[in-house]
Formats: sequence, C-alpha cells, structure tokens
Amino acid sequence: MQIGTLTIVGVGLIGGSIGLAAKQRGLAKNVFGIGRNPESLERARTLGAIDAGFLEAELALCDAEFIVFCTPVDQIAEQALSFAPHCPAGALLTDAGSTKAKIVAALEGKLPARISYVGSHPLAGSEKRGPQFADANLFQDRWTVVTQTPATNQESLKKVCGFWQALGSKVRLLSPQEHDRALAVTSHAPHLVAAALAAGLPAELFDLAATGLRDTTRIAAGDPALWTAICEHNRDALLEALAPFAERLEHLRALLVNRDWNSLCAFLTQAKKVRDALGN
Amino acid sequence: MQIGTLTIVGVGLIGGSIGLAAKQRGLAKNVFGIGRNPESLERARTLGAIDAGFLEAELALCDAEFIVFCTPVDQIAEQALSFAPHCPAGALLTDAGSTKAKIVAALEGKLPARISYVGSHPLAGSEKRGPQFADANLFQDRWTVVTQTPATNQESLKKVCGFWQALGSKVRLLSPQEHDRALAVTSHAPHLVAAALAAGLPAELFDLAATGLRDTTRIAAGDPALWTAICEHNRDALLEALAPFAERLEHLRALLVNRDWNSLCAFLTQAKKVRDALGN
Repeated sequence: MQIGTLTIVGVGLIGGSIGLAAKQRGLAKNVFGIGRNPESLERARTLGAIDAGFLEAELALCDAEFIVFCTPVDQIAEQALSFAPHCPAGALLTDAGSTKAKIVAALEGKLPARISYVGSHPLAGSEKRGPQFADANLFQDRWTVVTQTPATNQESLKKVCGFWQALGSKVRLLSPQEHDRALAVTSHAPHLVAAALAAGLPAELFDLAATGLRDTTRIAAGDPALWTAICEHNRDALLEALAPFAERLEHLRALLVNRDWNSLCAFLTQAKKVRDALGN
Repeated sequence: MQIGTLTIVGVGLIGGSIGLAAKQRGLAKNVFGIGRNPESLERARTLGAIDAGFLEAELALCDAEFIVFCTPVDQIAEQALSFAPHCPAGALLTDAGSTKAKIVAALEGKLPARISYVGSHPLAGSEKRGPQFADANLFQDRWTVVTQTPATNQESLKKVCGFWQALGSKVRLLSPQEHDRALAVTSHAPHLVAAALAAGLPAELFDLAATGLRDTTRIAAGDPALWTAICEHNRDALLEALAPFAERLEHLRALLVNRDWNSLCAFLTQAKKVRDALGN
C-alpha cells in the first residue's frame, strides 16, 4: 500500500501515532495534519508525525488520498460532512473514534458519491493526550475494528483494512452496532467503573493507594469531555453493559453478607482465569 | 539499625523483596527464610533474598532478632502463636499482612512476655506471586502502615518503624481498625470491583480488550485464596466500602438514563482530579 497524501485531522496521541507510524513505515509520501491549535501542530511536525500542519482544512485536503479523523467522537461526522466538498475525487475517509454506530449513520449516504467513508477504531491509546505522547508502535499487534454495513464499498473497506495493517495492526470486521456493544463491555463501562472508584477516594487516603488502585483507576484520568461524548454516543449499549456488572457486584456483596467464602473464592478464581487469558 | 538475624516467614514476592532489600542495604547480618516449599526456598536463596532456607521453623528462629510474617493473612496469627515458644527473648515479630484488626487482636496479649509483636502492612506488591518477582526496591518511597494500639510497646513500635524505613519505605501509624477501614476503600473494594469486571468478560471479546481494561482488571489476577482470606478478615469494612461505590455506580446509571451529560462530565472531571492527584 502506498498513499500519496495522508491527511490526519486532529494530531493528538492517536493522530500523531498514525503519522509517526505512516512515515516510519513509508506508507505515505506526504503526511499532513489539520488542527485548531498551532502549537500542537508545530509540536507534531517537530516530532516527525506530520510533514506540515494546517489550521485551514482546505489546504490539507485538496490532494488528500486518505483522510483519518482523530478528533472527539462528537466532532467526527460534522467535520467529515463539512470537509467533504474540499476532498478530491476518490478520497477515502476513515476515523479512529471510540464509537461507531452514530458516526457511521451520520455519514452513510450523506457524502458526495466521489468520496467514500469506512469507520475504524484502533484499540490503542491511553489516558494521555497530545502529540508528545505519540508512538510509532502504538498500533503494533493491536486490534483495529473496521466497520462494515450493507452499504459499505468493498474496495474502500479493503483499503482501510490495508491501511491499519500497514501500521502494524490486526484488523477485525464488525458492524457498527456490534462494535458499540462490544466496546461498551470492554471499554466504556470499565471507564465509568474506574471513575466511580476514583471519585470516591477521599484525599486523606491518597497516601494509602498502592499500585493496585493506581492500575484500576488509571483510565479515570482520561479527558472528561471526550468520555462524556463517548457515553452520549453509546448510551444504550453502555446501560446494557452496566446492568450485569452491577448484578455481579451485588452478588459479591451477598457473598460477603452470607460469609459464603467458598463461592467468593470460586468467583475470584473465574475472574483470575479471564484476567490471565487477557495477558499483559 | 542493625539486625543480627532477620527471619522471614513465607519467601514469596513480599518476603523475597524484604530479604533482597535487607541484604542490599546491609540491614541484617543473616537473613533466614522459613517456608513449606523447598524449591521456592532454594530459588529465594539463589536470587540472594535469603542466606539459608528452612522447612523447620525452629532452626530459623533460635537466633532470630526480627521475624517478619509474609504469609497469607489467615495464617499469620496462628503461625506467630505456634512459633513464639521457639523465639529467643527480645525477639520482635511483625507481619506484612493486608489486614490488621483480626491479626493484632489474635496476638495482642497472647504471646510470651519476652517477645513482642507490632503489626505492619507495606503498601507494595502486585498480582504476581513467588520469590522470582522479588525486587530490592519494592518498598522504596512506598508507604508502610504500622499499627498502634493502647497495648503497643513503644520501643518495639519504634524498631518496626525503623525496619521499614531502613528498607526505603515511608511509615504511617494507624490503629488496626483505621488501617482496615482505609484499605477496604483503597484496596479490597477495588479488588472485588476489578474481579467483577473481569469475570463478566466473555471469551469472544478478549481480543477487544485494550490497555484500559487490562489496567482496570490487572489485580483480578491475584491469588483467589489469598484474597478470599483478606475479604473474610475485613468483611465488615469491605461491605461499608462497597455500599457508596454501588451508589456512585447507580448515580452514573441514572445520569445515562436521564441523558444528563453536564452532570456526567462534572463527575468524570472530579474522578480525573482524584486520579491525577494519585500520580503514576
């Protein structure tokens, strides 16, 4: 795969990592960045994540062959729709948003026929923000979900899969709804759980928080606005994922109340089995 | 501080780390280990965590000046009581157990007058087990809680504090009950929460678990029997700690149901503030 101009919208941790990986792997001749913060664009350029940064999208889009939106989920569809008129014929759009159903629904059938869109979500990143945390190997051996619907152009789908694979990622195809239900369980509900743990910690106990709690609550340091937008997009699946979690918690509470230590040990054994299977 | 013979009961990750740190810092002339598994003792010796390993406690106790129990919380008090007759006059006993009230209550006033006991809990460790994970710097700049009651011998208390400080740790004095209430919030409830998250993850979603979930559930890989014993010891405080967590979770659920995105963002902002304050 060889891209003439790759344009990245939003050059933060994810966008910057895409740029670094694409340049290091010779995937694109030019890598352009679009952003609203001149300092952030300049930092991304200095780090080698982009060749040039643009505050005005038009300039970075006129020759763009492949455009990746790495902006917050509540901005992606709107930006794609407003950028579309400036994209050349044959341009392929994708994104790195943590939700898919709303974004895909907002774009499918709404873009000019000469350009196409396929949704993506690389399962990589951290609670950090900004191009200074970008990593050329962020996607290496990680999964990227690429979404497919009855309306998906197969040629474009193949190219988007090839793009992530070229960055080192493994690719899994899901419908946008399947993606959102899965991520509600594996990411969005755990985020709220971590936030609920962190929010309840009184300042006088900070000293007594050891490694375990630091790990458990790490994602609660994520950007509140970004995560609120994710929760808003994926509200229904998130509510569906929280219900069985709350039931398991109530089950654990009942085991404690009833002093049922054998069942508690069996529960912890099952949890360990799952966690061991996940690996590091 | 200079100890003639330091005897460590249970030479796993914590016991092994105490041995390594004590030897590297020249804190003890001899470091002996007591254990039930000859291979584990030999591994600890090879790694330099102990000078000699003993399957029979008597041999490792006859000259012991300082004895640290690093065994599961449900074994510490029983072992201390059965080892006591073999300890020389002036011997000082402590432990590294994750719960304190039951252990202290089981030992206070029950040991021969010529030896003394002060409870400890170094807030360090991981979900790993065994001397192969021992680390001479495990306690460096970490907190160790040392417990104090009206019956605590002040001389012994000072020595136990000095011991942990000599291993690089900062020391905080709490009553056993204060310790257990605090740790229920900072460690034991988060452990059950992590287990509840891990236990609910179906195998077909393992691939879609990214770094966030791995962090959030890491402690769920801890030993089920160890953690069941901790939950049994600290049942009451744990139930008290779980209740407000469940309330916060229910509050988050209500915010989603009511689409109250401003309040959700405020909640996540508060959680982030706490998590940022905890540091890495």
